[in-house]
Amino acid sequence: MTKTDSGNFFEDFRIGQKLRHATPRTLGEGERALYTALYGPRFAVHSSDDFARAMGLPQAPLDDLLVFHVVFGKTVPDVSLNAVANLGYASCVFAWPVYPGDTLSTESEVIGLKENSNRKTGVVYVRSRGVNQRGQDVLDYVRWVMVRKRDPEAPAPEPLLPELPTAVAPDAIVPPVGLDLADYDWGLAGAEAAWEDYVEGEKIDHLDGVTIEEAEHQMATRLYQNTAKVHFDQHAARDGHFGKRIVYGGHVISIARALSFNGLANAFRIAAINGGRHVAPSFAADTLYAWSEVLQRIELPGRADVGALRLRTVAAKDRPCADFPYKDAEGKYDPAVVLDLDYTVLLPRRKA
Amino acid sequence: MTKTDSGNFFEDFRIGQKLRHATPRTLGEGERALYTALYGPRFAVHSSDDFARAMGLPQAPLDDLLVFHVVFGKTVPDVSLNAVANLGYASCVFAWPVYPGDTLSTESEVIGLKENSNRKTGVVYVRSRGVNQRGQDVLDYVRWVMVRKRDPEAPAPEPLLPELPTAVAPDAIVPPVGLDLADYDWGLAGAEAAWEDYVEGEKIDHLDGVTIEEAEHQMATRLYQNTAKVHFDQHAARDGHFGKRIVYGGHVISIARALSFNGLANAFRIAAINGGRHVAPSFAADTLYAWSEVLQRIELPGRADVGALRLRTVAAKDRPCADFPYKDAEGKYDPAVVLDLDYTVLLPRRKA
Amino acid sequence: MTKTDSGNFFEDFRIGQKLRHATPRTLGEGERALYTALYGPRFAVHSSDDFARAMGLPQAPLDDLLVFHVVFGKTVPDVSLNAVANLGYASCVFAWPVYPGDTLSTESEVIGLKENSNRKTGVVYVRSRGVNQRGQDVLDYVRWVMVRKRDPEAPAPEPLLPELPTAVAPDAIVPPVGLDLADYDWGLAGAEAAWEDYVEGEKIDHLDGVTIEEAEHQMATRLYQNTAKVHFDQHAARDGHFGKRIVYGGHVISIARALSFNGLANAFRIAAINGGRHVAPSFAADTLYAWSEVLQRIELPGRADVGALRLRTVAAKDRPCADFPYKDAEGKYDPAVVLDLDYTVLLPRRKA
Repeated sequence: MTKTDSGNFFEDFRIGQKLRHATPRTLGEGERALYTALYGPRFAVHSSDDFARAMGLPQAPLDDLLVFHVVFGKTVPDVSLNAVANLGYASCVFAWPVYPGDTLSTESEVIGLKENSNRKTGVVYVRSRGVNQRGQDVLDYVRWVMVRKRDPEAPAPEPLLPELPTAVAPDAIVPPVGLDLADYDWGLAGAEAAWEDYVEGEKIDHLDGVTIEEAEHQMATRLYQNTAKVHFDQHAARDGHFGKRIVYGGHVISIARALSFNGLANAFRIAAINGGRHVAPSFAADTLYAWSEVLQRIELPGRADVGALRLRTVAAKDRPCADFPYKDAEGKYDPAVVLDLDYTVLLPRRKA
Repeated sequence: MTKTDSGNFFEDFRIGQKLRHATPRTLGEGERALYTALYGPRFAVHSSDDFARAMGLPQAPLDDLLVFHVVFGKTVPDVSLNAVANLGYASCVFAWPVYPGDTLSTESEVIGLKENSNRKTGVVYVRSRGVNQRGQDVLDYVRWVMVRKRDPEAPAPEPLLPELPTAVAPDAIVPPVGLDLADYDWGLAGAEAAWEDYVEGEKIDHLDGVTIEEAEHQMATRLYQNTAKVHFDQHAARDGHFGKRIVYGGHVISIARALSFNGLANAFRIAAINGGRHVAPSFAADTLYAWSEVLQRIELPGRADVGALRLRTVAAKDRPCADFPYKDAEGKYDPAVVLDLDYTVLLPRRKA
Repeated sequence: MTKTDSGNFFEDFRIGQKLRHATPRTLGEGERALYTALYGPRFAVHSSDDFARAMGLPQAPLDDLLVFHVVFGKTVPDVSLNAVANLGYASCVFAWPVYPGDTLSTESEVIGLKENSNRKTGVVYVRSRGVNQRGQDVLDYVRWVMVRKRDPEAPAPEPLLPELPTAVAPDAIVPPVGLDLADYDWGLAGAEAAWEDYVEGEKIDHLDGVTIEEAEHQMATRLYQNTAKVHFDQHAARDGHFGKRIVYGGHVISIARALSFNGLANAFRIAAINGGRHVAPSFAADTLYAWSEVLQRIELPGRADVGALRLRTVAAKDRPCADFPYKDAEGKYDPAVVLDLDYTVLLPRRKA
């Protein structure tokens, strides 16, 4: 009996296959503190129980991206241990907030498969669902990865590509149960800009930069129990394409989100990730900067207190973002860009 | 509407101005564990709930300096984002102990302003006050920083320098409510030396040394939600005066305090900081050593169980402190010295 | 009165001497999260309160090795501050599980002494016992260290070597009180291999590698309040034998245990350490790999649900372990080997 797990290869997946991922996880105050130490987020709702209670929540919820990384991390041993590349995310909805003491587990279903023409790899689409100990959804998302075949001669499945929306539907953007922003304290939140103050097409340079250290990204990625070896094994990486360990893409997303506080201090909740692309890998010693563009302002039905903004946040390495580096006329990314993230946040509306 | 915060410049401050700082913070067991991992303090009162209860406290309080850094961190975006230098601290009183679950917020008042003769910068004095969720003071201190002007031509305010005491008054040195040292366990605390055993003028070499790593000081400084960019952005630092990131001065204070356990194991509480000077910057790869001098032995009125010591603790880099490096005959600091801290601690008195 | 502690030298120890170590420690959710971030363990029982409850435990216990390191750390100032080498462990029994909120303290007794023929050093054997706040044993072990003499001329004690078993006796291998594996969830645990599936002599390559960073091993070692200066002081290390800081041996054990999940996912509890040897020191930048051999399958009296495996886990640096590097024909270790650990774990038995 084989005791070790070498992960699934492309030919191990089939449409409709259900994967029940290992290692449920109770998140607590320790994870909250570590997340703060790793990224330095300053969103008041995640920082203060009292601030959260004044918003109608039972206590400070854990950062939405901490939840994302933990739910995601569980899928790695089954889905992407033999991945060549993490190709994209879509349709990612954040549902129930997660609080210290909650226990998360993840299940996935294979919803798409397509062998590549070289027959050495194929693309696997999975829909993953993170739930808490009460069975409530906390996160639901699709990702697709390019996975190696164990045997290039293994027969290819019938190709099936799932239909994916370009953005999460507005009616899936739902504020947390109980949220009430009547007494929202703009001063303690750190900025006056309300939902109404952002205009479509507006670009914001988040100004600050932060340099990545090996110990930081390794500790973060282990905190999420993400085992992908490219992040941890310098001995193997030395002979690889880059010669060094690759930073987990989610670490870059969390850095960009923490930087975005300076300009989006009232974006207290990530409601959805519409799509995301890791344009280039990041490494220790890279300094990341970020900027955002307001793609869309979304009214939430029946809510005068809260609205949503669809944003693009772009992170670039070793290059400040005052001039908003993105793509050139031919659609090619600026060589400094490492992340292109399309997501939707909630902000309080200004009082009438 | 400007969304990002570039911080206040010298001409933005006025005497009497009140600043209500953003991002209240609930501290918990996670922050306690991280503080231990970052500095390795061994003071029993912060380490063990049972030890703290035997001293009359409800549970182990959080380290006094963790409280200092969190209260301080909140002031950075409003006070010192455009600071050239952090010039000094004074009149810092630690009041109510902070326990896991407490939520801290900070307010400041501008109490002094003086433009420098070059007209490019000025000195700002603020008195900051950290309070818990019950509105009780946990920390009250004055600091002064040299802040850039946005526009050198901006008119200078009438200079006003606050009167600052050279030390916190003895009657402001108050033990925590409920403290009772009748059953103090010297063995578990790690040393036999009581308040009476220290003599004025006595110097103690704390023996050990500790090397600073980039990931450590960055994680610490983010844990305190201190956003000053000199600590995090190597890309910008490369072209700066030092060519590298500067370690947050408070990180150095915490290292010195943790080293001081070896010689001051029973100094269970910092009651006040009388004054402090960051003599020189510290950087990753520096190894810090520390020594202390007993400046004064202070009896606390009505207390036979506890006394105070006013101490000077000096930290030096890449230089052991067996010969107590400090100042030369002309008052110039030894080039290895990085910190000169004048503060007051509480120790148990020996039983009659 | 000397205030600082320079540790005990060989001639300070005597047979039967009791050492009550300083700094009791309350462990909590913060330590759990940091342990996860430092090593990335994925054993479900330590990760999820719900999973632990389904096994009959009150909540997720803290990792057994976290307990080991904290109990061990307390002994360092009294036992091994002047140690030349940590020679071995034996007879280490894990008794009551430790849960967040428990407070640990450690006492030791000197049970063996033998001066070395050079008269400059001697070997000290101590039996240490970690207890929780209810006085229950959590850990009991023997270690021996080579300690410097202060004065080579100091008279040697009568040599006394304790009798140590080569392995913890099977009747000392006791599952945690309340443990009930009737509803053990193999899927959430991450592997199907039960106690019955392992055969004596079987070798398992744990596949993955992890690179050590300075900030990581320093934070870990401080988390355990282990003050041995070889781990922290690069300024002093520069002129030493290796020219660099040495990684705490327990850090290597924890890395090996976390790697062993891949192959031993159901080994939910370390019940005993029979013996251990740090074959060579580890340093930052080393990449560690590990493999295990099943030495013995042990039935536990009266238990149809749980069994024990005696294992040897070997860690090697900068060398994958597919061919199980160990000793050559003459008994000399492969130069890559850094750890040779003989210990006993508990696994669920397959249902009838």
